[in-house]
Amino acid sequence: MLIVMKADALDSDVERVAEKINNLGFQPHKIVGVNRTAVCITGNQEAVDPADFSNLPGVSEAISITKPYKLSSNKNQPQRTAVKVGETEIGGDNLTIIGGVCAVESREQVFAVAESVKRSGAKLFRGGAFKPRTSPYAFQGLGEEGLQILSEVRREFDLKIVTEAIDEKSVEMVENYADMIQIGTRNMQNFALLKRVGKSNLPVLLKRGMSATLEEFLLSAEYILSEGNEQVVLCERGIRTFANHARNTLDLSIIPAVKKVSHLPIIVDPSHGTGKSYMVGALARAGVAVGADGILIEIHPSPEDALSDGAQAILPEEYLELVGQLKAVYEVISAVGVS
Amino acid sequence: MLIVMKADALDSDVERVAEKINNLGFQPHKIVGVNRTAVCITGNQEAVDPADFSNLPGVSEAISITKPYKLSSNKNQPQRTAVKVGETEIGGDNLTIIGGVCAVESREQVFAVAESVKRSGAKLFRGGAFKPRTSPYAFQGLGEEGLQILSEVRREFDLKIVTEAIDEKSVEMVENYADMIQIGTRNMQNFALLKRVGKSNLPVLLKRGMSATLEEFLLSAEYILSEGNEQVVLCERGIRTFANHARNTLDLSIIPAVKKVSHLPIIVDPSHGTGKSYMVGALARAGVAVGADGILIEIHPSPEDALSDGAQAILPEEYLELVGQLKAVYEVISAVGVS
Amino acid sequence: MLIVMKADALDSDVERVAEKINNLGFQPHKIVGVNRTAVCITGNQEAVDPADFSNLPGVSEAISITKPYKLSSNKNQPQRTAVKVGETEIGGDNLTIIGGVCAVESREQVFAVAESVKRSGAKLFRGGAFKPRTSPYAFQGLGEEGLQILSEVRREFDLKIVTEAIDEKSVEMVENYADMIQIGTRNMQNFALLKRVGKSNLPVLLKRGMSATLEEFLLSAEYILSEGNEQVVLCERGIRTFANHARNTLDLSIIPAVKKVSHLPIIVDPSHGTGKSYMVGALARAGVAVGADGILIEIHPSPEDALSDGAQAILPEEYLELVGQLKAVYEVISAVGVS
Amino acid sequence: MLIVMKADALDSDVERVAEKINNLGFQPHKIVGVNRTAVCITGNQEAVDPADFSNLPGVSEAISITKPYKLSSNKNQPQRTAVKVGETEIGGDNLTIIGGVCAVESREQVFAVAESVKRSGAKLFRGGAFKPRTSPYAFQGLGEEGLQILSEVRREFDLKIVTEAIDEKSVEMVENYADMIQIGTRNMQNFALLKRVGKSNLPVLLKRGMSATLEEFLLSAEYILSEGNEQVVLCERGIRTFANHARNTLDLSIIPAVKKVSHLPIIVDPSHGTGKSYMVGALARAGVAVGADGILIEIHPSPEDALSDGAQAILPEEYLELVGQLKAVYEVISAVGVS
Repeated sequence: MLIVMKADALDSDVERVAEKINNLGFQPHKIVGVNRTAVCITGNQEAVDPADFSNLPGVSEAISITKPYKLSSNKNQPQRTAVKVGETEIGGDNLTIIGGVCAVESREQVFAVAESVKRSGAKLFRGGAFKPRTSPYAFQGLGEEGLQILSEVRREFDLKIVTEAIDEKSVEMVENYADMIQIGTRNMQNFALLKRVGKSNLPVLLKRGMSATLEEFLLSAEYILSEGNEQVVLCERGIRTFANHARNTLDLSIIPAVKKVSHLPIIVDPSHGTGKSYMVGALARAGVAVGADGILIEIHPSPEDALSDGAQAILPEEYLELVGQLKAVYEVISAVGVS
Repeated sequence: MLIVMKADALDSDVERVAEKINNLGFQPHKIVGVNRTAVCITGNQEAVDPADFSNLPGVSEAISITKPYKLSSNKNQPQRTAVKVGETEIGGDNLTIIGGVCAVESREQVFAVAESVKRSGAKLFRGGAFKPRTSPYAFQGLGEEGLQILSEVRREFDLKIVTEAIDEKSVEMVENYADMIQIGTRNMQNFALLKRVGKSNLPVLLKRGMSATLEEFLLSAEYILSEGNEQVVLCERGIRTFANHARNTLDLSIIPAVKKVSHLPIIVDPSHGTGKSYMVGALARAGVAVGADGILIEIHPSPEDALSDGAQAILPEEYLELVGQLKAVYEVISAVGVS
Repeated sequence: MLIVMKADALDSDVERVAEKINNLGFQPHKIVGVNRTAVCITGNQEAVDPADFSNLPGVSEAISITKPYKLSSNKNQPQRTAVKVGETEIGGDNLTIIGGVCAVESREQVFAVAESVKRSGAKLFRGGAFKPRTSPYAFQGLGEEGLQILSEVRREFDLKIVTEAIDEKSVEMVENYADMIQIGTRNMQNFALLKRVGKSNLPVLLKRGMSATLEEFLLSAEYILSEGNEQVVLCERGIRTFANHARNTLDLSIIPAVKKVSHLPIIVDPSHGTGKSYMVGALARAGVAVGADGILIEIHPSPEDALSDGAQAILPEEYLELVGQLKAVYEVISAVGVS
Repeated sequence: MLIVMKADALDSDVERVAEKINNLGFQPHKIVGVNRTAVCITGNQEAVDPADFSNLPGVSEAISITKPYKLSSNKNQPQRTAVKVGETEIGGDNLTIIGGVCAVESREQVFAVAESVKRSGAKLFRGGAFKPRTSPYAFQGLGEEGLQILSEVRREFDLKIVTEAIDEKSVEMVENYADMIQIGTRNMQNFALLKRVGKSNLPVLLKRGMSATLEEFLLSAEYILSEGNEQVVLCERGIRTFANHARNTLDLSIIPAVKKVSHLPIIVDPSHGTGKSYMVGALARAGVAVGADGILIEIHPSPEDALSDGAQAILPEEYLELVGQLKAVYEVISAVGVS
């Protein structure tokens, strides 16, 4: 933390800052400049809260230097984490494909898609039984019935199931039926829910909030990690900007940024990330090329009849072709040793 | 809904769209233009989902016309709603001031602020016992102990209590101790929570999400209204933009926009909306001038020691002076009959 | 400038940073923390460029402390500047109203509006002869013919003229016909144009760019000031965000922010700032309440026939009523001594 | 254009809309719904301005359907355009690499980089002699001296030169020394400049504005095209969002979006698009994978000494390695026939 004093700060203001630092058990270092004085804090192992200082008299700005996240940081854990879901590792030396449906609508729809997912060689299947929808009048998901259909997929196709939970009750149900709990965009800062899945034995797929900074994203992961669940996979799924040619703006620069500061794996969801089926393939390929640990793709046997987000689903045959392309791009990327 | 066909759409594509409209029980109207054909839907009382059409072959775009929210719309309820909290009405012919603390830290802190709130003539006191904090290492609120302190304020100062709930369990506690349930920014799309407070007997203060559009904001209100709770007050508290001179960008234009399409009252929170105490007064005055039904102000007897958001709290004496100014501005505004 | 070293930086990395600081003629101050070392720079009167350090080996971050703008800062010029346009002062102890048209379309239209502007007591008239339009097929303004109409308004109504210039040639013409040069949003970072008006004798109205930070806004003013023209008035006119209920998001928090760090006057344009006529009055009142030095309003005698931005123009009679309200709000605001 | 009437619009309001449509020479089509009436326009070859209708009494909304850009649209020109710069085609069946420096600083620096660019097999060299800098105190470029250095590069290395112009005078100079004129981000809506380069014989590289929508971007291209210069290449270089882990947010989804509606080639600038050298490689690879026609990379022999944007420059040896990777990714992408 660096506390920058105002040009007209009094000596007593500087003293008061120094005293507060001492009271916190740290060391103040006064630095006298041409125009003003700054006070640097040393001795702190963890981030100091700028709000502790920014309101003191004579203080112009309190600038954080230490990052507030610890468990998701790669400072003390330089090795990148690989999260196991069944036999699959997300974040290891491989590309994880998660295929599936947006919402579980019926046994037929889910099985049609599961067959393609199986055929593509993917090991993970994603489908939503609890759907957080913007409108209360939109299809809200089949609930437990949907989870039962997913568990049939698990059995019949030997695929592991990733599915969303939206509150305490649904977490319990998901724990009974599935292999990985998804926390959706709108719940990225639902801290009660994060704490609950932090106590789960299942790995967690945490989607980035629509307006979340990297720091906020990692702090939400930190809520899960600090409850004891170390199996967290991050997912970039588009942020909200002024741009209107896609439903969201897929922010692929967060992939190298996460890799620089965190040991957690991160995957990309180009389906929600663009909201337009014609863009999904191009952005999925870009996601692999940028170095993501995996790609999540939504498929629908008949997108025009989809009860949720049909506009972004691709057909099973398109999916199969795309997976081939993703593997080819991944091969090149890993050959040059950049991933 | 208007379905715009591509320039090269086949006649059979247009027929298929028309057929789907007929199947939904509505009427298709073909409009043949120089370059392409469009199909308009009539006969629908409520919004049709664009996703039903946007993926059909030959379709270029499906454009919504009917708004998806009904209960929060002023179409069927032209009279603006006044929400009662105790004897106070938010949204009537008056300006509601809600004063209070960000987080309940101690009996002393809360009582010091409550005294000023009482002295200012305000009837509502706000304070958080459950704090959704970005970092798991930040102060998370006193929980039930905080609610008990708030209920003492209620008794001693005859103020009604507004306080946040963050999950099912905390809603129940808030119902026992307080007079109005706040749903915070990060939970605006926590639909499980919205449904729960929709079943409560207490009025709800719904804060706008950091990246919520007007339509999403009203649809979140719709979740509460559609469960039977008609006592919803909206709150603008700043949105997330690239601008970095304030913590958030207070979007005052949403006040006239809400008044144009909805009957729900809306108040302004300049404390979170700016995150900087030196701006709070100016933006509070602007909030009154723009026509808000109320203003929510955070106060701290010693902001530099605040455990949460001290940077935006103003002093009790500043608050008292500010309330005088707000009343003066409101008087002018209501005299010219614009509010 | 504070240069934060990486945790694993070598001693030689720290030495290299220190050496570079010495080479620049400043003093390095090493601060050794628990986890890493930082180096503070003192001795610099002006901002040091972070890019000078951020790429050196072992450097984690270079954090600016000194602001890069000098002439627009209030550090050396604590007195707020009042810019004279004819007899009027923008930024003094008064509220400046600028009324006018978006585009000069015809003598009739301009005179009809000028009459109302005169009647309202305003001294400044705004109208565009050179219109920077998003589409090349949209009306581009009348050019010099438009300036001639404006100069007739100047003569007939004794109003001072504010009008936009878009390149070197139009600056010269504007200098011949008008009293204040407007630099539009899209040209806020057209530095060649800024340098040119920096050499003009006319005062300049500088509109904020759609995605400009406060620092960038003041640095654009700095381009004008550093060429010798000290008569700069800033104008907030809405920024680009995801919100879609208004054409732009009017960012009123920039008014107190500018007043805190700069001596330059700042006015508000609620017409472009909202793009919707029904919002203009409410946001104009808010602009006065937040402490702006003036308000710029677009009027059209028949908005439905406007060749440019008709959707945001108000009628002459609405304008006259609004000015009365703005004066009333200003009176209250200045009485409490906050403006 | 679809004009949606308010629920309470009068029959006479609808008539007035129909009359205005007739007056414009088009046909109105009334569509009577359960709740309200809409009027559709047919007969128009080009976009009608919504502002013509949105202010008429009884009108709720005027919704554009026809796109306002024509020459940049692929509707009448379905074949994708390849822009020739010397022997190179940008937009043909190949990947164009443009390597170079941000600012021309000295003959030594430029030659060192040009050698690597040549060695990589690239044909185009980029360097700035006129630098639009946020601060007037930052290095503004060498001007004509810089152009002379670039023309030496052209001669010595047989590379074609891409360089920025910022006003009329610099366009003329660039025409004398270089092969392609760059219009920078901050000038994307400097319409006077766009018109000027629209009259040039040189091809134009048009960078996307920091807050430009796809439609605005194409309309800026339209300014150039409509003056007769058909050689326009678009460039995505990052947009401004709230995200702060990169300097800008590179919006790769605009690549498939441009390919869907326009025939113009589009390249990606990951250097400015991220502002951080450690991200450049990853986003360059993603740019190729997403289907861009080219990649623009900034190189510096000693980034820590760069006079402009050193933080985003990569070393010559890193560049050479990266180009190899980009070619490998491009090979895979074009093999699967998706680019």
